[in-house]
Formats: sequence, structure tokens, C-alpha cells
Amino acid sequence: MNLLLLTPSDFIAESRVRLTGRPLQHVLEVHRSQTGDSIRVGMLNGEMGEGIIVSLTEQAMEMDVCLDQAPPEPLPLTVLLALPRPKMLKRSLQHLSSLGVKKIILMNSYRVEKSFWQSPWLSEGKIHEQLILGLEQARDTLLPEVILEKRFKPFVEDHLPAIMEDKRGFVAHPVGGVPCPHQIDDEVVLAIGPEGGFIPYEVEKLEEAGFERIHLGSRILRVETAVTAIVSKLYD
Amino acid sequence: MNLLLLTPSDFIAESRVRLTGRPLQHVLEVHRSQTGDSIRVGMLNGEMGEGIIVSLTEQAMEMDVCLDQAPPEPLPLTVLLALPRPKMLKRSLQHLSSLGVKKIILMNSYRVEKSFWQSPWLSEGKIHEQLILGLEQARDTLLPEVILEKRFKPFVEDHLPAIMEDKRGFVAHPVGGVPCPHQIDDEVVLAIGPEGGFIPYEVEKLEEAGFERIHLGSRILRVETAVTAIVSKLYD
Repeated sequence: MNLLLLTPSDFIAESRVRLTGRPLQHVLEVHRSQTGDSIRVGMLNGEMGEGIIVSLTEQAMEMDVCLDQAPPEPLPLTVLLALPRPKMLKRSLQHLSSLGVKKIILMNSYRVEKSFWQSPWLSEGKIHEQLILGLEQARDTLLPEVILEKRFKPFVEDHLPAIMEDKRGFVAHPVGGVPCPHQIDDEVVLAIGPEGGFIPYEVEKLEEAGFERIHLGSRILRVETAVTAIVSKLYD
Repeated sequence: MNLLLLTPSDFIAESRVRLTGRPLQHVLEVHRSQTGDSIRVGMLNGEMGEGIIVSLTEQAMEMDVCLDQAPPEPLPLTVLLALPRPKMLKRSLQHLSSLGVKKIILMNSYRVEKSFWQSPWLSEGKIHEQLILGLEQARDTLLPEVILEKRFKPFVEDHLPAIMEDKRGFVAHPVGGVPCPHQIDDEVVLAIGPEGGFIPYEVEKLEEAGFERIHLGSRILRVETAVTAIVSKLYD
């Protein structure tokens, strides 16, 4: 945790917060902080700054906080991710959140197992939890939006055109594309397939919607590694 | 497993292999293959190709293999990694292996906990296991070399100059550097610090050895994410 995220309910006065639970445990056990120490804090969806610990017990911690710094710039990127298996979903959400992606669409694809849509990791609370972990890692406060699209064709035909407006679309696909470009300025919608990849019909539908195929060379990377690799090439 | 790695002891005739254990379980349970199916195979440190299953039981599998393709080009990169905590070490080794890094030096640093050097994950067998998982993921056959350097100063002063010959050195450090460059042609030695980063003395020693400071912006990424990000920027 490189940033302690605050919410309005933590405030007991204008610049005083009172924390219990997971943040308190972390400060006690990992930071091993003491009264008087300062901790980097941020308001969820707001500014960042420092908190000075004014009291600390096993039950609760109080801090005086000063929030005066803007969070890092969001990436100009929307990620369409074919729903991964639960364990990888969890990691991918943390990952995307820590990279600065602010719009994530989890979508269906032929090779997505139906059971993945029943995963408890898709609950709003569990998704929120992973996104928060990513923000705390990266020192960011802006919570990404996550949208679930359980039907491929209606999504691509009816919702995707509005999402694509004024943006470039890239679909990561090992066959028939160009190497992933570096250091572009455009807003991008990036589609990443499931394990085993999109089927040809799906790649064609995405191409009809204006997507270009890109690849990462002959090595096959895991979904979360591929996301980091593409984001890192596209932007500074 | 996107590639099944073979070793000389698997061969029972010139182009016939017999497999048991983990590869067999994977073929039975994940690929759900049958006699006649083909599987992508590669000889450890050798060529890649296809294997055709000629017999398959719960006890063993036999395949006829044809190895006629070169593995992917290695990255022109040596990674110096401050020894991470065991769980992260495991993931980082898999990661570096799947990205195509062929020389990995695990080194000491002030912020590396001494106990990490006692981890069973540092045994030759465990390291080998993680590297193999990375190769199987990426479809590569060339096993990376892993070197342990338990003392920072003797390593940097006595061994590093020879490693650095004709290469550029980059140290990932959040303060005082330039943004990580993109698409370079040079051979690189990349130093990545521990959680919390290198201490100033260590960064200075690396700078004396010819390293340049680079950063990845204001977001703090985990070691394994930072490695992927830097490799992806530096090379196509």
C-alpha cells in the first residue's frame, strides 16, 4: 500500500480522519508507524497529500490530513477484456487499475467459459476491492469504471460504435497484424481476447467496428502481461 | 502450457519421445488430447516443432516429434534484480523467462531482507521450475541463466564492469532520471531495486558503473509489472 485511500465517511472533522479495519492493520503491521509519523493519503476520486498520525491504538488511528495534490493523469485508454478465469480476473483488475486505465469493459467471447460469468469475483464489492488495491499500489485516487457485457454481438454492434467515437481501436491478435505501435497520442480502445484468443468471426466483427490488429511478437504472454506490455508501448 | 518442453532423456528413439508426470497430466487434463492429435513441442535449449501423439494412457504418452523451427530471438537484455520476497521472486522469474530475458542476476541491496536469501525458492531446482513455466507460456526453449550475488559492493565494483562492456545500463529509480526510452537498439543491463527502492548510495554506485536513471512516471508499479513495462518500451 503506497497510498492510503480515504472516503468521506472516514472524516470526523474538516481535516481529521479516524480509521479502523484494514488500513489500521496495515499501518500497524507493515508500516509499523507511530504517532507523529506521516503517511501518504488520497481521497477516493479526489486529491492526494499527507496525513500526520495524531493517535494510534490497536482499535483506531486518527490523522490530520492535508490534500493538495492532483492524482496522476488517467491513461487515454479504454480496455475491452474478454472475461478471464476468476484468478486472472482478480489480478487483471488490480493490474489495470495500477496502470491508470479508467474504463474497463469485461465482455463475452466464444472462448470464455460460461461458468466465469457466475464467479463471485464479479460482484460489485469484489471488483471494487481489486480496483482499490491497484490504486493503493500505484498512488492514484481515480476509481476505474467497470462494465460487464455478457453478449458479444449486441455489444459490438450496438454499444461499441459510441465508445469508439474519435478513438483508435486495436485488437491484440497473434495473426495478420502489425507490431504494436509505440508512443502514440491518440485515445485508444484496446481489445484483448481470452486464453486461446478471439475466434476469427470475433476479430472480423471488431475489424468491421474499426479495430486494427496488433501483435507482440512470437512469444505468447499471459493476459495481464500482455496488457502491461501494450500500455507501456502505446504511452510514455 | 503453450509449448511442451522436451529433454534428451525423454527420447526413446531418434524422433520418438515417452512422457510421464506433469506434461502427461497437462495433456490429459488441460489439452484433453487424444491419439493422433498434434502438440507444439520444443527441445530445451534447442529447436521447436510439432509432436503427434501415437499412444496415450494414464501412465504414459508417446509422440513422434519433428523439431525444425528456431526459438524466438532472445532479448538483448541482462536484468539485475534486487532479490524480491519469495512469492514475488517466483512470479518475477516466470515473468522474465516468458519475456525472453536470458540473463538474470539476483543481487543484494540494503532494503532486501536478509531472510529472503534463505528462501527455498532460491534452490536450483525451484528456480529451474519457474523458468521452465515461463518458457512453456511464451513458446520458447532457451533457458535463462540465473546468477546469485549476495554482496552488493563487491558485485558492483568487481563483476559488473565486465557485464556492462559494450552495453547501456539503466537503473529504474523514481527520482532524478529521464522517462524510460522507447525502441532502442542497444544491448542493455537493467537494474531494478527492491520494494522501497535502492538507497541513494546504491544508485550512486550504479551511476559510477555507467548506469543512467530512468523512471516510469508517477505511478508506482510492482517489480514484475515494472519489468514488463520497461522491456516493452525498450524493444519492439
